[in-house]
Amino acid sequence: MGRLILITNDDGIDAGGIRQLAETAKAFGEVWVVAPESQRSGKSHSVTYLEPLYVRERPGYMDGVKAYECSGVPVDCVRVGIHLLGRKPDVVLSGINSGYNISGDIQYSGTAGAALEAAFWGIHAIALSQANLDYHPVTDRYLRELIGEYIDKPLPQNTVWNINFPGCAPEDCKGVKHGCAVSQDDFYTDSFTCKTLGDGTVEYTVVPGRNWHGSEGTDLGAVCDNYVAVGTVTNVR
Amino acid sequence: MGRLILITNDDGIDAGGIRQLAETAKAFGEVWVVAPESQRSGKSHSVTYLEPLYVRERPGYMDGVKAYECSGVPVDCVRVGIHLLGRKPDVVLSGINSGYNISGDIQYSGTAGAALEAAFWGIHAIALSQANLDYHPVTDRYLRELIGEYIDKPLPQNTVWNINFPGCAPEDCKGVKHGCAVSQDDFYTDSFTCKTLGDGTVEYTVVPGRNWHGSEGTDLGAVCDNYVAVGTVTNVR
Repeated sequence: MGRLILITNDDGIDAGGIRQLAETAKAFGEVWVVAPESQRSGKSHSVTYLEPLYVRERPGYMDGVKAYECSGVPVDCVRVGIHLLGRKPDVVLSGINSGYNISGDIQYSGTAGAALEAAFWGIHAIALSQANLDYHPVTDRYLRELIGEYIDKPLPQNTVWNINFPGCAPEDCKGVKHGCAVSQDDFYTDSFTCKTLGDGTVEYTVVPGRNWHGSEGTDLGAVCDNYVAVGTVTNVR
Repeated sequence: MGRLILITNDDGIDAGGIRQLAETAKAFGEVWVVAPESQRSGKSHSVTYLEPLYVRERPGYMDGVKAYECSGVPVDCVRVGIHLLGRKPDVVLSGINSGYNISGDIQYSGTAGAALEAAFWGIHAIALSQANLDYHPVTDRYLRELIGEYIDKPLPQNTVWNINFPGCAPEDCKGVKHGCAVSQDDFYTDSFTCKTLGDGTVEYTVVPGRNWHGSEGTDLGAVCDNYVAVGTVTNVR
């Protein structure tokens, strides 16, 4: 196929999702993986520039795939990847995240952040996420056909494709909803628990919460209704 | 005035810019400061949820201002601030950042991230930034009148005001450009220097670069032409 494909994620280079993505992407071109050395969820579009990054090759990561781990966040991996390749790749695939990147999740997501960084460089990009598991059979069922459909499909400036696989059994999945809007429903209901420590410092721990009700036509609505959700996300710019 | 005003930033609670902002904001309502304990630039819309946050009151920070420092990033400070206040503030002011938040900068900016987090909660927000100094006399000249003009000025959903003060002498500043678009010019020219360490790890250090040429009508164009730039930024959603 001749495409040069850069793959990253935010769950770290050894997460199941990125291996599944790299394995599948080999059918579409030459695959390079540059990913965080460990978990970097919630890192959004953050970038490391006040301290150095450390990048190590990972020989034997996967047959036919060049792989590197990076001390930084997902956005750093895209920038390091462009440097390692010596040119912009034809496409950046980010994921497959363990956890949806829909509705308000997208703002915090390192998976989306990496794809949006690629868009910022004018590179075609797809963010991919699945319910809450590293690996899920619904993803397995639809992954290859959706990469095939969206890997070259044109996008507006500063915009990426965003694909979310629902957390249901394959036989319960109703298919793919294309053109989902980003849900503006009230999705996040995070709260804190607080504990006052000896010196008066208060320790805040996030208690994650979500409203699992999405409007018709949205990404959230689609996954709640057991559809694969495909839509776009556009940078803050 | 009766407004409840929450102030944060990404340069840390002891930066000059946030003190200047808090001092000025007192004329517009009751001011609370919740800000990172130290430098958190480039943290974008990232959020801390995999580890706890630590929050400490800072008695004596400023006359008539309640102040707290937080171990987290700017977005965390907005969320902690809402929790401390027991209700949503009427407005979030984020800054004054040392360094512009214009064009591509906005994507990486913790200053913008905090304001956009407020917007996500339905709170009116303004991000404020200045050239590259903690304090600048052009800011001093225009800060109070611009806060007055924009502190209640309606915004579309998921959108914040974004104000940037140029890095020129006050007598060279040509005034305020309202309604600036976010520049889509090719602004960032970051590169890396690389050093191979003993074990084969490569150390990457960012060499920041910028193209200081902005199109007419943009935030970048305005500050390059010695105007204060006022515009809006909308979340990725």
